[in-house]
Amino acid sequence: MHINLTTHKFNKDDEENKIFMKKIGIVDTTFARYDMAKDAIDEIKKRVSKVKIIRRTVPGIKDLPVACKKLIEEEGCDIVMAFGMPGKEMIDKICAHEASMGLILVQLLTNKHIIEVFVHEDEAKDEKELAWLCERRAREHAINAINLLFHPEKLTKLAGTGQRQGFEDVGPLKGSK
Amino acid sequence: MHINLTTHKFNKDDEENKIFMKKIGIVDTTFARYDMAKDAIDEIKKRVSKVKIIRRTVPGIKDLPVACKKLIEEEGCDIVMAFGMPGKEMIDKICAHEASMGLILVQLLTNKHIIEVFVHEDEAKDEKELAWLCERRAREHAINAINLLFHPEKLTKLAGTGQRQGFEDVGPLKGSK
Amino acid sequence: MHINLTTHKFNKDDEENKIFMKKIGIVDTTFARYDMAKDAIDEIKKRVSKVKIIRRTVPGIKDLPVACKKLIEEEGCDIVMAFGMPGKEMIDKICAHEASMGLILVQLLTNKHIIEVFVHEDEAKDEKELAWLCERRAREHAINAINLLFHPEKLTKLAGTGQRQGFEDVGPLKGSK
Amino acid sequence: MHINLTTHKFNKDDEENKIFMKKIGIVDTTFARYDMAKDAIDEIKKRVSKVKIIRRTVPGIKDLPVACKKLIEEEGCDIVMAFGMPGKEMIDKICAHEASMGLILVQLLTNKHIIEVFVHEDEAKDEKELAWLCERRAREHAINAINLLFHPEKLTKLAGTGQRQGFEDVGPLKGSK
Amino acid sequence: MHINLTTHKFNKDDEENKIFMKKIGIVDTTFARYDMAKDAIDEIKKRVSKVKIIRRTVPGIKDLPVACKKLIEEEGCDIVMAFGMPGKEMIDKICAHEASMGLILVQLLTNKHIIEVFVHEDEAKDEKELAWLCERRAREHAINAINLLFHPEKLTKLAGTGQRQGFEDVGPLKGSK
Repeated sequence: MHINLTTHKFNKDDEENKIFMKKIGIVDTTFARYDMAKDAIDEIKKRVSKVKIIRRTVPGIKDLPVACKKLIEEEGCDIVMAFGMPGKEMIDKICAHEASMGLILVQLLTNKHIIEVFVHEDEAKDEKELAWLCERRAREHAINAINLLFHPEKLTKLAGTGQRQGFEDVGPLKGSK
Repeated sequence: MHINLTTHKFNKDDEENKIFMKKIGIVDTTFARYDMAKDAIDEIKKRVSKVKIIRRTVPGIKDLPVACKKLIEEEGCDIVMAFGMPGKEMIDKICAHEASMGLILVQLLTNKHIIEVFVHEDEAKDEKELAWLCERRAREHAINAINLLFHPEKLTKLAGTGQRQGFEDVGPLKGSK
Repeated sequence: MHINLTTHKFNKDDEENKIFMKKIGIVDTTFARYDMAKDAIDEIKKRVSKVKIIRRTVPGIKDLPVACKKLIEEEGCDIVMAFGMPGKEMIDKICAHEASMGLILVQLLTNKHIIEVFVHEDEAKDEKELAWLCERRAREHAINAINLLFHPEKLTKLAGTGQRQGFEDVGPLKGSK
Repeated sequence: MHINLTTHKFNKDDEENKIFMKKIGIVDTTFARYDMAKDAIDEIKKRVSKVKIIRRTVPGIKDLPVACKKLIEEEGCDIVMAFGMPGKEMIDKICAHEASMGLILVQLLTNKHIIEVFVHEDEAKDEKELAWLCERRAREHAINAINLLFHPEKLTKLAGTGQRQGFEDVGPLKGSK
Repeated sequence: MHINLTTHKFNKDDEENKIFMKKIGIVDTTFARYDMAKDAIDEIKKRVSKVKIIRRTVPGIKDLPVACKKLIEEEGCDIVMAFGMPGKEMIDKICAHEASMGLILVQLLTNKHIIEVFVHEDEAKDEKELAWLCERRAREHAINAINLLFHPEKLTKLAGTGQRQGFEDVGPLKGSK
């Protein structure tokens, strides 16, 4: 994502006029090896006041879908972020696929967005880089969640520009008009 | 598609008699590296007057299904075009598959067509050709969307004729009657 | 299928007593390279009078499910035939899988049968054989559709006998009682 | 399964007291190369009196799910057995997967068990063994269906004991308590 | 999981105040080669009084989803544990995938958690280790089920700490803050 994470801020007063305490759900797992939810919550609190955050933790990624659905339907969340960290083996990839299908289904059953924030253990060269990636992706997707909820027009300005969460943006194709 | 993109036009007056401001939804991603939605919107506007276009942008392709469903159910869209650009890796292919399953589900839950316009990064030999492909596919699928909405009989005339969107049509089998 | 396609006929008078104008839906694609729907419609008309056929054409196989659902729910079709022709590449196989899952879902949501008539481009040695296969499969599955609708007992007589649509039947296992 | 198929019998009088004519649905295909349904029906009739059996036959395994759902919802079946015989090719494995997903969905939509009885053509060394396997699996799963319907406690006695349908049971792990 | 299985106990009096006889469903298979349900039930009873346990056994893992749904909807279970033991072959992996998708669907249809406790036959080096793994995983997931039901805050304390059920916990990433 191209914005500077440390300096970019939403105008809090604008938010206050627009919202009547929106609720953001946060679900993560005990299986993951990094506390991405903490970073995301920190990022949200830095950028938006008057938003209520409700957090739940489940054992593994396949437990995420129903936890998200309960946050939306039983707690009234307007959007949910779902954090997971699939391992390197084929079985982990299959679990991630099943969880993703479940998360899509929840969205279709509730008409609410769920931002899936998965970091695969084989995405980075070592544990240190993986931890760095987890934090970056959690924070950048927190901004995506805020934009979906409060500033959808900001996303449209970035349409087709090759945004990535965590590693560097790849940018638009050479040859794009 | 065999029609000449630059000269073929729908009769706008015909449309005016037929429709009471149909709505076409457009959803794309910040992940994609080309703004296909812009081309599609341009193509639609060239061909149909009195159609309302509603556009949304989401982070990635797995966010497309619920965005499409919201356009149909909350904004009253009669058809939606969903644009995405999966990467080259296996994980990207899996995401595309999950998104496609979601898009099919949305259609079944709403009884509305969603035209999936995905360009895979490994479909072309370089970025320039990829950009060319994106524009062509976006424009040709815009025509498909218009035909599904206003001229379904035009599609039936092309049944079984090997139409492709982007690259050249492959045409009917040798040996077809 | 073991029956002689050119001479076997259903008794039209029997049909007239049994039905009050059943509707058969037909959906195919502009992507396919052979007009299987035409052959199927021809086969149905040769065998059953007083049946109404409603045809729709969509761009690709992933557009088939919702088109089938609309034929059932909006046009009152009692059964639908869905024709598609997946290409040779892995991506085509995945699309076919997604379409098939969608077609199964439509059936479960409507309690109506949909006969999936897919011919994969790599099923035959050349285009001529592929065209031959398309026609045979379309016609034989048209008979399956008719039997499901009007003569389910005929299918039970063929249970476990190794019927195939297009190529030769493989027949029952040696060693079957 | 460890029980002797030819001598083990349920007490018919017990059944008579417990049931008010339960209905068992049976669905199979013309694609299969062995009539497993016949064996299953024979096994059920030997073991349970006062049960009504309703049989349907469809072309292929992907047609099974809706046929099962119709038996449950339109014919009032309390449980269904679904018989299929996927071929050896990758495409056959995919069809079997799609059918299985459909069968699971039907169960979730109806809250009734469906016993999937699939024999893959590559499970046995020749056609004779395959026919033997088909009969064994059909009969043993018929007993499973009866137990699910009338004697669920018998299944719990076998929990975790490595039961197989067709080939020999593998038994509990060495080292189990 | 980091807790000592033999000494850690929930305060039973606390439970008594909090609950009005919660119900935990337990479903396992005759296919599995170890009775994990027994260990889980033992673990639950050691830790929670005044909880009602309802157990069902089905033939194979694909029968688990509907059995779980019936326990929730027909027996009023508040949470369910689903035990299965997929074999080593590709077909077993596919069955496990289908069962997992079904279990996720049940959760979304009921808004109740289902703890999937699957042990794959190829996870351990021999039958003895496999039996050890089955018991450990069953007991540790029993604790997860109890926590989800009575102590969700305990799970949040473990968020992102690399918990595993059975084998040793992998712990948080080096480099995590």
